[in-house]
Amino acid sequence: MSTPAGLPGGLTRFRINLAYDGTDFVGWAKQPGLRTVQGELLSALNTIFGPSTDDFGMRVAGRTDAGVHAGFQVCHIDITEDQLVRLGRAPFSASRLDGLLPEDVAIIEILEAPNGFDARFSATGRTYHFGIADPACKPDPKQARYVLSVSRQLDETLMDAAGKSLVGLRDFGAFCKPRQSATTIRELRELSVLREQDGRILVTLSADAFCHNMVRSIVGALIAVGEGKLSIAELGEITQAAKRTSRFKVVDPRGLSLDDVQYPEDDQLAAQAEKARNLRSDEDISV
Amino acid sequence: MSTPAGLPGGLTRFRINLAYDGTDFVGWAKQPGLRTVQGELLSALNTIFGPSTDDFGMRVAGRTDAGVHAGFQVCHIDITEDQLVRLGRAPFSASRLDGLLPEDVAIIEILEAPNGFDARFSATGRTYHFGIADPACKPDPKQARYVLSVSRQLDETLMDAAGKSLVGLRDFGAFCKPRQSATTIRELRELSVLREQDGRILVTLSADAFCHNMVRSIVGALIAVGEGKLSIAELGEITQAAKRTSRFKVVDPRGLSLDDVQYPEDDQLAAQAEKARNLRSDEDISV
Repeated sequence: MSTPAGLPGGLTRFRINLAYDGTDFVGWAKQPGLRTVQGELLSALNTIFGPSTDDFGMRVAGRTDAGVHAGFQVCHIDITEDQLVRLGRAPFSASRLDGLLPEDVAIIEILEAPNGFDARFSATGRTYHFGIADPACKPDPKQARYVLSVSRQLDETLMDAAGKSLVGLRDFGAFCKPRQSATTIRELRELSVLREQDGRILVTLSADAFCHNMVRSIVGALIAVGEGKLSIAELGEITQAAKRTSRFKVVDPRGLSLDDVQYPEDDQLAAQAEKARNLRSDEDISV
Repeated sequence: MSTPAGLPGGLTRFRINLAYDGTDFVGWAKQPGLRTVQGELLSALNTIFGPSTDDFGMRVAGRTDAGVHAGFQVCHIDITEDQLVRLGRAPFSASRLDGLLPEDVAIIEILEAPNGFDARFSATGRTYHFGIADPACKPDPKQARYVLSVSRQLDETLMDAAGKSLVGLRDFGAFCKPRQSATTIRELRELSVLREQDGRILVTLSADAFCHNMVRSIVGALIAVGEGKLSIAELGEITQAAKRTSRFKVVDPRGLSLDDVQYPEDDQLAAQAEKARNLRSDEDISV
């Protein structure tokens, strides 16, 4: 196996693509005594590779908050030669890791990472979906864990127009929890709202990265627009002011799912990681 | 309000269309001390109409077993004039009943039943779906409660051919729990197997009615065919013999959902009810 550039000798980096139902987790990030996705993953990795003092150097593309789901999440781990020996003849396969995990976490694929790959810093974009059920939606208990129910009927066309008005490179301070020495400038590349065949409203958001609470805060604003409580012009003023407001809420995470992470071509991975590391290394990127 | 023909004077029959996630229920039918869909429904109806000595005369189209879901289930209730008075000015609406129910039961629609309507005996057909995930299926934890996972890859084309060979009016004794004085003759109208875009295998079954365990037993046989453990010719012989066999299993209900109930035109409701009542009144129709 080749050693990715920039990795200390003897380390092999693996990319893990996974999915989870966030309902019964307090979030991605490991917390002592609490059920987290990372915690479950580390415990399964311990079984395969033996103990690790640095949590296998795990880093994740999107550090999801409590209750947030993932249809497609990416993390990486660095495995030492000693740990690799523990594998024996059995490969480090998706099905082997998956078999050690509870039902609400699933391993989609495990790949040896290309040179320069970093699950968090090489990522050039993240795509989230947010599902909403209003009274126009056919009730579906199988969806109850994955959509936010609202009691008023929403105007999805108005919401879509409001969403489009937010697209671009701008300061999203109106939608972010402020943190010292962290920029709230992001490039929102797509924000579309449509009503699906079953009546559910699906919000799709793509950006280079999102700051803390940004998706749930934008969805709160779109719901206020869809209810007729906030005009697109008012939303424009609030966005312009780039300060938090009480005109809309940070909505419940139940409808939120990280469903894609974008990476550049292999020869751009290291350069992108370098760029992002300088820009965001001390930021909170949980969503 | 008109009184449906055949109902004692003063009773109003309502048709209730509903859906549920069966995971946390021990089935449809009320059982003391256990969590059942009917039990939850009766308790919500008690809140609206006051107590009932006969469970509001409730009857259901498909008495689902423990763990079986419903995307579309139908039941009816008979409400007395005294109970109607309890409604006051608030209508007996789907949203009112839904608001009194837990998240895993949802009311789709409440209608005043047409003359002669009986949720169970007027029904001319039931459609079930059964979802299966094999190794060719992209893992999706959001689906874990609604699909049966199997570890071997299945040949869905073979399964579809096997399914088609079962369609018709015949004795399904090979797939039914035997019960005294109950026929196991059913008309299976559709049995198709296809692989969906996300890799899941979806089995669709429509019949006039199903006997106990029939769907889960047929799906068990189709899985044996899809694994290459049972040939279509052998399945034909077993079906012909109309006796239970150990060549396939009654599978876990997790993938099973009642998703449609068919009724005839309004002017045929009473005649169909009379016919079915004579044919099946003492049968177990739980699935």
